[in-house]
Amino acid sequence: VTIKLFDLAGAEPDRRFSPYCWRTKLALAHKGLTVETIPWRFSDTDAIEMSGQRRVPVLLDGDKVVSDSWTIAEYLEDTYQHRPFLFGSAEARAPTRFINSWADTVVNGALVRLLLTDIYAHLHEKDRRYFRESREKRFGMPLEEVSADRDTRVVGFRQSLEPARIILAAQPYLAGGRPLYADYILFGCFMWARSISSFRVLTSDDPIYSWRERMLDNLSALARKAPGYSE
Amino acid sequence: VTIKLFDLAGAEPDRRFSPYCWRTKLALAHKGLTVETIPWRFSDTDAIEMSGQRRVPVLLDGDKVVSDSWTIAEYLEDTYQHRPFLFGSAEARAPTRFINSWADTVVNGALVRLLLTDIYAHLHEKDRRYFRESREKRFGMPLEEVSADRDTRVVGFRQSLEPARIILAAQPYLAGGRPLYADYILFGCFMWARSISSFRVLTSDDPIYSWRERMLDNLSALARKAPGYSE
Repeated sequence: VTIKLFDLAGAEPDRRFSPYCWRTKLALAHKGLTVETIPWRFSDTDAIEMSGQRRVPVLLDGDKVVSDSWTIAEYLEDTYQHRPFLFGSAEARAPTRFINSWADTVVNGALVRLLLTDIYAHLHEKDRRYFRESREKRFGMPLEEVSADRDTRVVGFRQSLEPARIILAAQPYLAGGRPLYADYILFGCFMWARSISSFRVLTSDDPIYSWRERMLDNLSALARKAPGYSE
Repeated sequence: VTIKLFDLAGAEPDRRFSPYCWRTKLALAHKGLTVETIPWRFSDTDAIEMSGQRRVPVLLDGDKVVSDSWTIAEYLEDTYQHRPFLFGSAEARAPTRFINSWADTVVNGALVRLLLTDIYAHLHEKDRRYFRESREKRFGMPLEEVSADRDTRVVGFRQSLEPARIILAAQPYLAGGRPLYADYILFGCFMWARSISSFRVLTSDDPIYSWRERMLDNLSALARKAPGYSE
C-alpha cells in the first residue's frame, strides 16, 4: 500500500508551499516511507472531505485518514516504530510539541506577513479570490499593504528566531547531532518561504542560515531539489 | 556530603528571586536531593570566585563546582541517574533546551521590564547602586521609566506565552502528564515575579495560570511556601 498525501500546490502543480505539508513530507522521508503526493488547492475541499476538515496535509495510509501535521507525525512514529525515530522517546514528544506551537504561532505568524504577496502570485487562478478575501479579512487591509513594510519587518522576524539561534550556535541541529522532527518543524517554515519567494528572510552570517543549508542537503537533498527560489 | 547552592537573595535573606536559581532548586527537589542554600547578593562576587564567573546559581557538590542553571540540570541528570529523571531521555534534552532558550530570551526578556522597580525595592542596600547603574545602562533609561507602562506592556507579555498556552490547554504539564525540567524552566520565571511583586502577570482564565497553581503545589508546595506575593 502506497501512502498518499494531499499537498498544497500553486498554479504549477509541482510548486508545493505549505509549511505543514513540508513537515509531513520530511517526516515520511526520514522514516524511509514512499509517498505519492497529490497536488491540492484551497478550492479542492471536496477531495479531502473524508478527513472531516478542510486543511492539508491529509495523509492516506491504507484505510486510515490522518490530518494535521502534528497528529500525522505522532501517527507515523507510533505506526512505523521500527523505522528511524522522529522524536526519539516518549519523553521527547512533549518538548518537541512546544517547538511545534512556537513555530506555528511566532514563526509562521511573522513569516506570513513577509510572504503574502508572493504566495498570492503563485496561486492557481481558482484559489486567488478565496485567498485574497480570507487574508484581507484576517489582516484588515489589502494583501499588498501587509507585505509593504517587509524590509523593516524582517528585522523583527529574525529577532524572534533567537531561541533557535542559541541552540543552533551550540549544536548542528535542534534535535542535537542529527535532524529529527524538531528540525523538520522549523525547516518547514523556511521551505514555505523558499518555494514561493526570493525575499531574503535570513542573513548568511546567521547560524540558522547554515543549519538551513544542512537541512536542504539532508534526505538526499529532497528539499533543495523542490521547485523554489534560492535567496 | 550535603549539596550547597548559592541562591540570589533580597534584603531579607529568605526572599529568593532568581528565576535561574528557582529552576535549580526545583530540579534538586525533583531528584529528592537535599540542598543547603546560601543567600547570595550581587555584590558577593568573591564568594563564588571558585566558579570562574560572577553569576548564580552556583552549585557545590563535594569538590565539584557547577554554574549556569542549564549546565547544573545536565550535571544533576548525569550524576544522579537513579533518581527521578529531569528530561526523561537523551533525546528529550535537546528540545527541552529549546524551551530553556525561549524562556531566557522571550519570557525573561519581557518579564524584567514589568518587574524592574519591584526587584529594586527588595534588594539589599549593598546591591542597589550596582543594580540601578547596570540596568539603567542596559535599558538606556531610569528603572522607574522602564516599568512605567507595564499595565499596557503586560498584554504583549501574555501574548508571547502563546506557545506554552497551546500545550497547557491540551495537557497538564509542558512535559506531559507530570512536571519535568521543561516545566521548572518556565515556572522559575513566574517564581521570579511572585517572590518580589504583586503585579498581576497572568489572568485567572489562562491555562498557564492553572498550571502555575499546580506547580506551586507540587514537590510538597516548596514554591508556594517560599516568601513571595500571591497576585
